[in-house]
Amino acid sequence: MIPFKLTDELVTDIQGLIADQNDAKLRLMMKEFHYADVAEITNELGVEEATYLIKLLNSEKTSDVLTELDEDIREEVLSNLSPKEIAGELEELDTDDAADIVGELPKELVQEVISKIEDREHAKDIVDLLRYDEDSAGGLMAKELVKVRDTWNVLACMKEMREQAENVTRVHSIYVVDEEDKLMGRFSLKDLLTAKNSAQIKDVYIPKVDAVNVNENPEEVAKIMSKYDLEAIPVVDEIGRLVGRITIDDIVDVIKEEADKDYQMAAGISQDVEADDSIWELTRARLPWLILGLIGGLGAAGIMGGFEEMISKHAILFFFTPLIAAMAGNVGVQSSAIIVQGLANNDLKGSISNRLIKEMLLALLNGVILAALLLLFTWFWKGDFYTALAISVSLVAVIVVAGIIGTFIPLFLHKRDIDPAIATGPFITTSNDIFGILIYFWIAKAILGI
Amino acid sequence: MIPFKLTDELVTDIQGLIADQNDAKLRLMMKEFHYADVAEITNELGVEEATYLIKLLNSEKTSDVLTELDEDIREEVLSNLSPKEIAGELEELDTDDAADIVGELPKELVQEVISKIEDREHAKDIVDLLRYDEDSAGGLMAKELVKVRDTWNVLACMKEMREQAENVTRVHSIYVVDEEDKLMGRFSLKDLLTAKNSAQIKDVYIPKVDAVNVNENPEEVAKIMSKYDLEAIPVVDEIGRLVGRITIDDIVDVIKEEADKDYQMAAGISQDVEADDSIWELTRARLPWLILGLIGGLGAAGIMGGFEEMISKHAILFFFTPLIAAMAGNVGVQSSAIIVQGLANNDLKGSISNRLIKEMLLALLNGVILAALLLLFTWFWKGDFYTALAISVSLVAVIVVAGIIGTFIPLFLHKRDIDPAIATGPFITTSNDIFGILIYFWIAKAILGI
Repeated sequence: MIPFKLTDELVTDIQGLIADQNDAKLRLMMKEFHYADVAEITNELGVEEATYLIKLLNSEKTSDVLTELDEDIREEVLSNLSPKEIAGELEELDTDDAADIVGELPKELVQEVISKIEDREHAKDIVDLLRYDEDSAGGLMAKELVKVRDTWNVLACMKEMREQAENVTRVHSIYVVDEEDKLMGRFSLKDLLTAKNSAQIKDVYIPKVDAVNVNENPEEVAKIMSKYDLEAIPVVDEIGRLVGRITIDDIVDVIKEEADKDYQMAAGISQDVEADDSIWELTRARLPWLILGLIGGLGAAGIMGGFEEMISKHAILFFFTPLIAAMAGNVGVQSSAIIVQGLANNDLKGSISNRLIKEMLLALLNGVILAALLLLFTWFWKGDFYTALAISVSLVAVIVVAGIIGTFIPLFLHKRDIDPAIATGPFITTSNDIFGILIYFWIAKAILGI
Repeated sequence: MIPFKLTDELVTDIQGLIADQNDAKLRLMMKEFHYADVAEITNELGVEEATYLIKLLNSEKTSDVLTELDEDIREEVLSNLSPKEIAGELEELDTDDAADIVGELPKELVQEVISKIEDREHAKDIVDLLRYDEDSAGGLMAKELVKVRDTWNVLACMKEMREQAENVTRVHSIYVVDEEDKLMGRFSLKDLLTAKNSAQIKDVYIPKVDAVNVNENPEEVAKIMSKYDLEAIPVVDEIGRLVGRITIDDIVDVIKEEADKDYQMAAGISQDVEADDSIWELTRARLPWLILGLIGGLGAAGIMGGFEEMISKHAILFFFTPLIAAMAGNVGVQSSAIIVQGLANNDLKGSISNRLIKEMLLALLNGVILAALLLLFTWFWKGDFYTALAISVSLVAVIVVAGIIGTFIPLFLHKRDIDPAIATGPFITTSNDIFGILIYFWIAKAILGI
């Protein structure tokens, strides 16, 4: 397989073909590409071009491409399609993807589009899904699944299954329900294939089945599915009735988004931005954190102003403030990142106080090693042992405090049900800068006996 | 489903039961737990206890628990099992999991363990897998798959498939090969179920199939599988022969590890450490980056020493060095994070120079806003407009340079095939601190005409 690669040349070629209205060649090209690749290409085109290209594709491919498009492009392309055309695309999609698209449509269009979907069962399922919060298991699930009654035998099940499976792209498990649609268990297609036709479902199925509640949050679903290596998980309502199914491909996206979000928070970027967003969007995501950093820097400047009387005799103390701030920031980010990751991966055990003691010992060990290096360097540089000692001892104190703050804040936020990831990055760097410089001058002043 | 929650009480209870040798109760408890949960419990026990508990489980559960254990605990537990016992566990596992465990065994044990595996086909497959680099598609794949010849009909295929499927936990696709075992295409179990018995495979199968080369790196495989929403992908050797299959659950782990790694790098933590690792391991992962920060801080101190003559008249310049360093660091981390994430998600298009121009404009916009705030504050604080202006103008320059460095370095590293993630975090913070302070003093000096 030659992997698809989106190049500027390819985009220019396609734009040329669109300008020439060379439909035959375009159709031939697009037929060769996977829908995810067609979506990548379409994301690079202008609205007119994108709409032209999409209208050329056969309906099944169009709908798949639509689900993969960037949200802003999709919105524009859809605004160029008639309600009937949109309904036609929704018809081709699984209910979860269709509901996502309907959720993005202008409110006044929704009813008309839904009314034009020919398969009324499908339309009903889509409307059902619209009711769930996007940030819940219900918002992630699809209605497509294969379910059978516990009272059937394998042959009846096979027959029913063939019918249901028509609408289900991937059958992972066949779910077994009772007369009230309550989930009782599951079995696999493989179990079905290897069972005798006369066998009863109730003798074949596995009565233990992992399921999630429709209100469960997506990150929890992701944790469960990846911990238990599940490829699909049934979703049940408050009274245990089977209402949908979440598949692993949707969960892969949740995991990636979650990791991206934590990383962006740590880097001081709010909201979900990408390199290709506009300068304005990027500024909105970055500036607030920079202003936070500015306030921290002004605080540090204010603190140093308060120690101004030391500047004539001990200018060197002031030379080391960026070092102190950097070390306080780095240690804080390291500690908080380890805690945030431990919390995300669910592998933090033991009490908060134990963790703080451990971090204190760790920071002390690192601090002493770093302080020793700093002591030697400064002593040789300036030849003043006491100043060098004062700076180095302060560094140890700063590192220990930074480590404790970096460990405590995310644990504290987590206890209060606030996402601890906001504690990493600029937030912790800024507060550690201020505390660090304050502690540094206090201790240096005490040691130098000023 | 009540989600499993690992508590200190539960661990203490189980330790008590082990001490009392209350096997009946332990067996009953463990039967209720999923193997991933048993592994979580076992990770918290001492070696003796862990071995005791694991020997109580039935063989199938033992092997599953083994695959989920922390590597260090697994190593200790295995060292308490005889080669025959280990071979028995390997027998129960899929070849990829078995090969991972064999790979961790002491070299002198490997041959003996393998020779004691009764299913010789299985043993051969495990040995085959040992040859592949852990960090390649070959190292991820399992040998378990269902393949059929293109010349068969559906009935023959059904029969063969039932046999092969016995060994395959999850059948995603049935692969079609020619007489030389070259991969020709695929079809799904569902296709098989809905086809007529007399149909020929060559009329049923889909000749287009995504596959990866056995030497492909895991991150690339993850990108392909998540982009194309694949749940399994066949692996082929250099001449296109089908040699294995990678499933999405293994890829979920790759995605998580990759995201964790980037995040750790950004936070200045090398190697894969966790909160529960020893203080020594954590120090090894954290100290090198702190030493880098220390060197940066010493560089900054050296630079400030070079401008010492300014200190008597313009002490305030020195008060703002932590602010300048923090802003340079924050902007650098923001820019590099956006680039690193764009590269990881494969959505950076356009040339490097365009990207640098965009970042420059963005940094200029942010810089001017921040500098205006700083100007007002400093002017009011000290009442000296020219000093305030000098500091603010320098800030703009520092932010623009920091943004450019933060954008350029990861792009440059990526071009050279070096993981750009190393450029985020302490590396960029440190270099930006030094450049920032240098630029700051230069410009301030020029403006103040000293």
